[in-house]
Parts: sequence; structure tokens; C-alpha cells
Amino acid sequence: MANSKYEYVKSFEVVDKLLPNTWIVVRIDGRNFHRFSAENEFEKPNDVQALNLMNSCAVAMLEEFPDIIFSYGVSDEYSFVFKRTSQFYERRSSKILSITVSFFTANYVMKWKDFFPQKDMRLVPSFDGRVVCYPSNENLRHYWAWRQVDCHINNQYNTCFWMLVLNKGKTKKEAQDILKGTQTQDKNELLFQQFGMNYSNLPAIFRKGSCVFKNKVEEIVKHTESGDPVKRLRKKVVVSHCDVIEDRFWKDHPWILDE
Amino acid sequence: MANSKYEYVKSFEVVDKLLPNTWIVVRIDGRNFHRFSAENEFEKPNDVQALNLMNSCAVAMLEEFPDIIFSYGVSDEYSFVFKRTSQFYERRSSKILSITVSFFTANYVMKWKDFFPQKDMRLVPSFDGRVVCYPSNENLRHYWAWRQVDCHINNQYNTCFWMLVLNKGKTKKEAQDILKGTQTQDKNELLFQQFGMNYSNLPAIFRKGSCVFKNKVEEIVKHTESGDPVKRLRKKVVVSHCDVIEDRFWKDHPWILDE
Amino acid sequence: MANSKYEYVKSFEVVDKLLPNTWIVVRIDGRNFHRFSAENEFEKPNDVQALNLMNSCAVAMLEEFPDIIFSYGVSDEYSFVFKRTSQFYERRSSKILSITVSFFTANYVMKWKDFFPQKDMRLVPSFDGRVVCYPSNENLRHYWAWRQVDCHINNQYNTCFWMLVLNKGKTKKEAQDILKGTQTQDKNELLFQQFGMNYSNLPAIFRKGSCVFKNKVEEIVKHTESGDPVKRLRKKVVVSHCDVIEDRFWKDHPWILDE
Amino acid sequence: MANSKYEYVKSFEVVDKLLPNTWIVVRIDGRNFHRFSAENEFEKPNDVQALNLMNSCAVAMLEEFPDIIFSYGVSDEYSFVFKRTSQFYERRSSKILSITVSFFTANYVMKWKDFFPQKDMRLVPSFDGRVVCYPSNENLRHYWAWRQVDCHINNQYNTCFWMLVLNKGKTKKEAQDILKGTQTQDKNELLFQQFGMNYSNLPAIFRKGSCVFKNKVEEIVKHTESGDPVKRLRKKVVVSHCDVIEDRFWKDHPWILDE
Repeated sequence: MANSKYEYVKSFEVVDKLLPNTWIVVRIDGRNFHRFSAENEFEKPNDVQALNLMNSCAVAMLEEFPDIIFSYGVSDEYSFVFKRTSQFYERRSSKILSITVSFFTANYVMKWKDFFPQKDMRLVPSFDGRVVCYPSNENLRHYWAWRQVDCHINNQYNTCFWMLVLNKGKTKKEAQDILKGTQTQDKNELLFQQFGMNYSNLPAIFRKGSCVFKNKVEEIVKHTESGDPVKRLRKKVVVSHCDVIEDRFWKDHPWILDE
Repeated sequence: MANSKYEYVKSFEVVDKLLPNTWIVVRIDGRNFHRFSAENEFEKPNDVQALNLMNSCAVAMLEEFPDIIFSYGVSDEYSFVFKRTSQFYERRSSKILSITVSFFTANYVMKWKDFFPQKDMRLVPSFDGRVVCYPSNENLRHYWAWRQVDCHINNQYNTCFWMLVLNKGKTKKEAQDILKGTQTQDKNELLFQQFGMNYSNLPAIFRKGSCVFKNKVEEIVKHTESGDPVKRLRKKVVVSHCDVIEDRFWKDHPWILDE
Repeated sequence: MANSKYEYVKSFEVVDKLLPNTWIVVRIDGRNFHRFSAENEFEKPNDVQALNLMNSCAVAMLEEFPDIIFSYGVSDEYSFVFKRTSQFYERRSSKILSITVSFFTANYVMKWKDFFPQKDMRLVPSFDGRVVCYPSNENLRHYWAWRQVDCHINNQYNTCFWMLVLNKGKTKKEAQDILKGTQTQDKNELLFQQFGMNYSNLPAIFRKGSCVFKNKVEEIVKHTESGDPVKRLRKKVVVSHCDVIEDRFWKDHPWILDE
Repeated sequence: MANSKYEYVKSFEVVDKLLPNTWIVVRIDGRNFHRFSAENEFEKPNDVQALNLMNSCAVAMLEEFPDIIFSYGVSDEYSFVFKRTSQFYERRSSKILSITVSFFTANYVMKWKDFFPQKDMRLVPSFDGRVVCYPSNENLRHYWAWRQVDCHINNQYNTCFWMLVLNKGKTKKEAQDILKGTQTQDKNELLFQQFGMNYSNLPAIFRKGSCVFKNKVEEIVKHTESGDPVKRLRKKVVVSHCDVIEDRFWKDHPWILDE
């Protein structure tokens, strides 16, 4: 219904369909979460409840949007991938971006009390987001590898940094200086020698980040008269902290990339 | 810091800067709010508390983002305009869109209890959004006019529709048929003759929608020794239900378009 | 070198890089060639010299731009594909489009005399163009199939149409009416029964269009002292009128899609 | 007519309409013209016939495309502006860009003989191009100012450079070193003291570049019986080398920006 002579302004809107037959990744990222985590007194270097809250929002995403077939999160960021063939909102970039970030944000606020029952949320949390298309499965796998390598590098650094600050009484500046130029191996040594900590024993959720995806699980539907179980495969959204760089995960879950 | 051989995937990201020297309008719209408003039993045709909640979120937006200089809302949609010269996130479209919709959504959930103290929110609310640029002040004024005409048309129709359904016992189908093809004047007659209702006496918030913007208010800072007040102009975010189609509003608030 | 206070206008330019790891197809199309071919008295339904001129321009393209690995032309249109990994002008869409269409146009004018030595070119020829990205090899092969099916449909129709007009004295309107609603088989019958023409015997350049690509040819570089030839594989730009819908062509020339 | 199952590939094409109500500038630029001008032995620092050829192509552009209302050229570049309200090819960026650059190129080749009757053109000339939108008249005027300042800076430098090389026997490297760090005033001094040349006396086509636009000219249509002339205003494409930075030109030709 053309409502008025003003309706021409609609013609200024832009068509922003994403290239067909490409994986659509939406990555969202906490805005000003440095301050948000400080105000809400998140534990350093990792607050496991804050991570669980993020993961719980990701689970809600996969349950709400069937076209999201895998997601990966670390710290205050989360990436979701819509399948290659997705026609979600006709692949309009703005729609996909805005709905993803909005639904995630709503869940974050609504679920807060489940993870921090004793803390009122301070400040208004918000997330920014971006959309990126990947043409090949290899490109997509490299995307997850990129994020997981980043997780490792940041977590190892932050673990050292906060151990120095919290357990050795170093200032932040001193801790930075100590870590400047160190390599992976140096940081592992530092943790072991100064704190008796074996980095690889830290919880996987910190070291590997979190994957949320649909797994195929066998479930017993009923029993036959003779008492034998009747099973079927069902897809169930699961959270896992596995390695997504090596082939193994993708070989074990071929339906993710094959659709 | 180039973290790994996988980092090349970053090059697939798209630069999406909006044209400089144009007004940036972000319009957000409730996703599936037909169902959301039904589940949460919003009053029909207008739930004043639901509108007040939307307006309160808009106020929070203007207080958080100084570059938003005017906004207009009706029903479950709200439009925000960033000033022509805004360099908010370097005018990156995805950033502006995602942060706007995310911050609005977070406020919507957080403020719910203030407006519906006796109702637990059902369902997860979310909003989609889009970004549109307008080159001239005239285009921008026509944008607001377009939305306000739309508000009028929809509200008049919905008022008739729900009066027929709620007060005359018509089915939704019957109400639709009665209203099919009617003009503005016909609907006013219908309201007056069948329900004794003068449409123009309905609350302005329903008929005109809501504007949220920074008004210049004079305030007394202190008093001189002789008791005279010392005043200054301050900008204060206000909610109003005025006509934004005619010139008057814009002449009375020249700083909005002049910056 | 920032030359003046006016240089800010450069910031209005748009970054338009094409998605990496996709095939870049540029399709160009004669502008107003209906009139151009009439003024220059091209033969109907096909002017073989006009087609040869187009092919010659395509050959020049492949010789000038190494990243173009295949091209296909029919009538006054030609499509060129840049390889997936191409970094030609950093994959900037405007650069790729404008240079392709400009270089093709220049060749078209310069080579005219070689193909129409007895005709002065009338009117100024020009071409429009567009850029499309294809993520998978299958998509790209379907692109060529789409164009070749189009070639077939148009050529068969045009052959019938012009036979009716030129050899049966039908008006254009009458010819249109006769052909309305006919299928492929009907048109073949018509050509055979009314004109004794077997459509499949028409020159392949008309029925199949033209492919221009780099073929691997064996050439004798020199002879050994004992007189044996020393050969090497060399890439040479060739014109061919083969089927690009079936697998065979692509199996015989695997280096085109494999790079 | 959906011709086949392959036609889906058309859905990969991108909609690229330019923002309405903005000035559309297409700037084209000679590709590899450093080499092209060397091979064709253009005079240094400026070849007046090469410039006249460029201007002649620009005139052809304005005569062919009524929506182009002003253009400005210098060296091997030319900028054309389509009026704000233009609906040329529905403001599709690819169409506008490709047709502009193609038609210009065709003219360049076709007109060569008119300007270089004694020289066969060597190499195939081609041009790249880009499209930029400007929202306000001020932005557009600054665009022309930007190009004209650039013309001045480059021409002054090139004049000095080639005088040193051609008339003082300096090597190119020596000339560069002499000019490094010099200001406008220094270069004027150099030309005057070493070569007795007053820069401001050089031909305006070198110093100011060339404007091609539609001028309003009065012409005598017929004479009345009493012999009085009957005049009318007609728009005629003209070439001029005036200053487009100051207000004067725009005040004298108000129809250009007013449409």
C-alpha cells in the first residue's frame, strides 16, 4: 500500500543480499566488555560462569535458527555460521546481522540470573557484529582455526599476565614488560617454573574455547513387545571444547560441512 | 599481531563505510512481535505501556549515543538518525547497525519490569534492523513524514478493526471486510457513528507516534548574591508526540537539522 | 601527497573488492547493437565477420590479461572469467570492469578494418558490462551452460525468424506469430520442411557460440644432434566452437578449472 | 523467458544502484598511459593535440548522454558528472561505469586520426574508471577544485622537470633532486630565472585543465518581417579552460548545479 508522496524515501534503501552458495559467518563481539566485565567483577583471566552464559546464549541461537549449523565462542565473542544453502531472510545481510545480534543480546540479559544468581547485572551489555562470506569448506575451516589459534594465544598470555599480577604482586605494566617478546614455550615455562602450573591441564573451556553445534545422538524411542529398544538418530545441540583445527573433529561430524 | 597462517580469512571481510555527509537512519523493527504481543497480552489496538517501554529504550539510546540527534517510534518499530557528520565507528554500516539493535534490545529486556511489574516476559524479544542514508535535509524530513503518515494510517485502521472486534463482536474476517476500501473519512465516520468516538481525541501517542530528541531547556544553575537566577541552556532528552510532517516542529527545534 | 583542503572528497570513494577465492566473471554486451548492426548492415541472422571480430577482440583480451583463463561469446556479448586466485587490481570490481570493457572496446574499433575492409564503421560502438562472482566450479560451469543454452535458443529462433522474413516474404509480425509458442522440435521441423535446412548442419559458430581460452599445444623447440625433435608444452590462445555444457570439454582441458 | 535449469546463476548478480539524490561522478584514467604516451611520442610536459583529443571525446560524451552536465579533464584523466536526479540505467553503478568508459574509449580510437593525422596509433589505449557519489553541491564543487588543484601542482612540477631535462641537459634524477621540497613560489622563480618563463603565461589548457559543459548561447532563429532578429537560448556543448575553484564560474553558469 503506497501510503503517501513521502514513500519515495524507501527507494534509498539498499539491497544487500549475500553471495549465494557461500557460508555466512556472523561474528559478534562484546562492546566495551573490558568495562562491563570489570563492573560485574568477572574473574580474571577467565570467568567460567560468564563463559557458560555466552555458551547458553549460543545454544539458544542454534535452537531458534535451524540454518545455523555450527558456532564457536571465546571470551566475549561468538561466531555463528549459516549453512551454504541458507535462504534465511533471503540472505539479506542486514536482516541476518541484526536478528543474530539482537536475539543473542536478549538471551544474554534474560539468562544472566541463571548464571549469576547472586549478582545484579551492572551496565547495559551490547554486542557489535559483522557478516563474512566464505566460498569453500576449506576457507570455513580455516576461519574456525583462526579463531581457535587466537583463543590459545590470548588465553596463554592472559593466564601468565594475571598470575603475575594476582599471585606475584606485579603491576600491570611490569607484567606486560615481563611477557613482551615471549614465545609460546617461554610462557609455558614461566607458568610451570614460577607457579607450578601445567598449562595443558587448564580447563579446556579456557584453552580451546567452546563449540556449539548439532550432534547426532542415538535415543531410545520405545521398546518392542519383546523388550528390545527401538532407537533413532536425533540432532541435539551440544557444547564441546574440542580442537577444531585438526581434521578429526570434522571427520567425526561430517554432517556439519556436508549439510 | 598476525597470529597464524589462518589469518588470511580476515581478508574476506567487507569494508562497508556509509557515504559521508549523509544522514544515517537505522530503523529497527520487532521480529515476530505479532506473536510476542499476543503471548504477553498487549492491549489492542495499542498497549500504552508497551509503547512507553519502547520510548524508554529510545531515551536510553539518545543518552548513550551522542550522535543520534532524533528518533521516532510507532508500534514495535523505532528509527534513529545519526547526524550527517557522524564518525561513529568510522561510519561502518555493520557496526552502527549491530550496536544500535543490540543496545536497544538489551534495554528492552532490562526495562520490562519497570513497565510491566506484574507480568513476566514471555518469549525472547528480538529486533531486526536496516541502515539507510539520506543525502539532503528534505529527504530526511520526508523520511519522518513517511513514518508518521504510516502511523496514522495503521492506527486508524487498527482502531476501527479492534472496536469492531472487541465492542461489536465481529470476527476478524468480518471486520476486515467492513474496512476494505474505506478512506480516512469513512473510518472517522464509522468510529463516530458506531462508537461515538472522535478519532482526533485519542491520545497523541497513538495517533502521532513518539519523537525522542534532545531539547534545549533553560535551567537555573545558581543564584547571584543579589538573588537573581543564573541560567544556562542545557540539552535534555525528551519524549513528545508532535507532528513532524509540518514545518513547525523543525522551525521550533532548528538545532536538530542544523547540528 | 595531500594536495589541498579539497582532498577530503577522496574519502567518498567506495572500496569494492570482490570476495576472494571466487571466480570473477565479467560479461560485456553491445549497447544499442540492434541499431549498430542495422546501420552497419550486418547479415541476418548471423554475420560471421561480426562474430569473427568479436572473437578477435577476445583473443586480444586473453593475450593481454593472463588472469583471464576462459571466455565465451555469442552475438554481441562476451564473458570473461578471471581465475579464482586472481589478484588483478587487488580484485577491485570497478577497475576490473572498466579495464575489461575499455580494452575490448578499443580493440573492436581498431580491428574493424581487418574484418570489414570495405565498410567504414558507422556509429560509435560501445559495450556495457557487469561483474559476477561464482564460489564453486560447478556454479561457473553452469554459468557457461546458461550462456550456451541461451545461444542455442536465440539462434534457433532467429534462424527461423529470418528465413521466414527473407525467404518467405513474411513480415516481422507474421514471422513472430508463426513462431509464438513453438518448441525446439517444432522449429527444427519448420526449418527442414519449409527450407530443407538441417539445423544441426549450420556452422558451429552460430549454434554453439565461441570459446576463447588457452590451450596446451606441443611444439618442437629444436632437434637433437641425432635429429630427434625436442618438444615442449606451450599455452596458446585458441578459438573453438565446442559444447561447454557436457563434461567432455572440461575433462579434456582440466587446467582451465584447476589453474 | 527462463531458458534452462542453469539460469539460477543469474541470482549471483549484484544489485548496485547508487544512492538517489546524489551527484554521480565517473572518473576515468588512462591505463598505462605513461608507456602509451612514450610510444606515441607525445610532447612533454604537455601534448596539446593529445589534450584536444581527450576534450573532443568529452564533447562526444556530453552530446551522447544528456544527463552528464559537466566534465573536467587533465592529462589522461577525465571526470563526468551525472545530474543528481539522473535515472540513467536506473542509477546502476556497473552500467553507468562501463558505458561511460566504453564510449569514451571508442571515441578516443576513432578520433585519433583527426588529431594525429600523420601518426598511426601504437598500442591499444584503455581507461580504467570509478564511480563516486556526492551528496551536496558543496561536495561536488570541492571535487572539481580537488582535480584542478591537482592539475596545477602536477603541471607546475612537470613544466619545471621537463625544462630542466630538455633545456638544461639534466638527467631525470638530477631534475627530481633539484625540485625535491620546492614550493609553488620556488618553482615559479626557477622557471623565471633559469628560463625567462612566466608560468602564468602558459596556455590555460595546461595550467587549468579543460571543462566541457553545456553553455547557454543565444542564437538567431529567424528574422521578423521588419527585419528584427528572433533569438532563442540554446544549450551548446563548449570547451573552456576556466577556474572552477572560485565562485565566479558557478555563478555565471547557475544552471549546471541547479539543473
